[in-house]
Amino acid sequence: MIQAKVRTKSSSFSPADRRGIYRAIYERRDVRSHFLSAPVPEAVLGRILDAAHHAPSVGFMQPWDFIVIRDESVRRAIHANFESSNRRAAAVYEGEQRKLYDTLKLAGILEAPVNLCITCDHKRPKGSGLGRQSDSATDLYSTVCAVQNLWLAARAESLGVGWVSILDPEKLKAILGVPAPLTPVAYLCVGYVSEFLTSPELEEKGWECRESLTKLIHFDRWDAQDERRAAAMVETIEERKSIGR
Amino acid sequence: MIQAKVRTKSSSFSPADRRGIYRAIYERRDVRSHFLSAPVPEAVLGRILDAAHHAPSVGFMQPWDFIVIRDESVRRAIHANFESSNRRAAAVYEGEQRKLYDTLKLAGILEAPVNLCITCDHKRPKGSGLGRQSDSATDLYSTVCAVQNLWLAARAESLGVGWVSILDPEKLKAILGVPAPLTPVAYLCVGYVSEFLTSPELEEKGWECRESLTKLIHFDRWDAQDERRAAAMVETIEERKSIGR
Repeated sequence: MIQAKVRTKSSSFSPADRRGIYRAIYERRDVRSHFLSAPVPEAVLGRILDAAHHAPSVGFMQPWDFIVIRDESVRRAIHANFESSNRRAAAVYEGEQRKLYDTLKLAGILEAPVNLCITCDHKRPKGSGLGRQSDSATDLYSTVCAVQNLWLAARAESLGVGWVSILDPEKLKAILGVPAPLTPVAYLCVGYVSEFLTSPELEEKGWECRESLTKLIHFDRWDAQDERRAAAMVETIEERKSIGR
Repeated sequence: MIQAKVRTKSSSFSPADRRGIYRAIYERRDVRSHFLSAPVPEAVLGRILDAAHHAPSVGFMQPWDFIVIRDESVRRAIHANFESSNRRAAAVYEGEQRKLYDTLKLAGILEAPVNLCITCDHKRPKGSGLGRQSDSATDLYSTVCAVQNLWLAARAESLGVGWVSILDPEKLKAILGVPAPLTPVAYLCVGYVSEFLTSPELEEKGWECRESLTKLIHFDRWDAQDERRAAAMVETIEERKSIGR
């Protein structure tokens, strides 16, 4: 094959460009409660799918496929899958935690005008297996990189995205006709929203709070933590966040 | 817990903000060959780690940890792990493909001034298991979302990132002292670069080419493909890409 010779020279990002990526990262939300029924234009959907398609992949395997779901009967079948999976999931919580769980809105399958299923084809020949021999999960990881690219591009397009993981994956495959060897990695609800919350919804509802980043940083080896050094690394970031607010 | 009441109102992105996120997505590269030895400032590293920490996670579990590796003896041990893993990996290729494989530069462990290992702690109590009962891989997926956030933020900071997947994960854990129940999801080389290629390196070297997105889009069900409709969705995207060039 012919090697591309043209290369990017002016590769640095302006402050305005950097603001865009950090805004998307800090203002992205996992949306469940705030979907509007307004249709998503095909061209906008095309842009976020193309963003997904430009994710990194192991050996340039590109193991993903995208099922764009608008059909209401399909969404109703998946919603029923969610409802039964969620009844089982709820049963593990007791007392106050169960009461709180039952107040959480965990999926917008019927409210969001578009749903997306992103799958991983473990047998895709692209890449000829490069990079896949030491860790068999790398193709799944590539597919998740595509999901996260899509999620960030969607935020920049004012589209909310919610990842629904409370679904029986085998039933999901049966509903969508996904071939048996493939893995449905992500089921996403996509649509315009009435608002983007300033904090994750699970934090606003009191289910969980954000961990301090400084507790999660290690230096050179796992057992070498240094919270003062880690705190010094992240101390200027509040300014960065304010760019996006 | 107290619920946050402040909400984002002016949530839409300006064209300049959108340009930033699409530039990062389209100009991000998996870097192996072009690392410079210039040090990465602690504050810049802090910003990309904070970007990772603001990834979505199942149930707000935040299962990730970050090991920041600069120590040369540690990097040499990991490089030796890569070399032996890569000898085994190379052995599956024959003829012209083997010759091409042997010309590929697949890791910059010693050249990049910073390496990062991002792990997943399957037992982290945060999130109380919400969203994790139907698919046990969701915590790994959350960790990959953190990797992709970091990768895009790094691009905006002019830092190259290369994901090294040709490593024996058990040996990697032993070198870094990662506790047995955790999974090392990603091993990344990070540093400033002499250039960002305009195309993926594996495409430039003739190993693999990009698939057409229109072949990967399905409508409502797996067996319902419509390349004309898919092509219409993505036909305007070349303009979008040109924003970032």
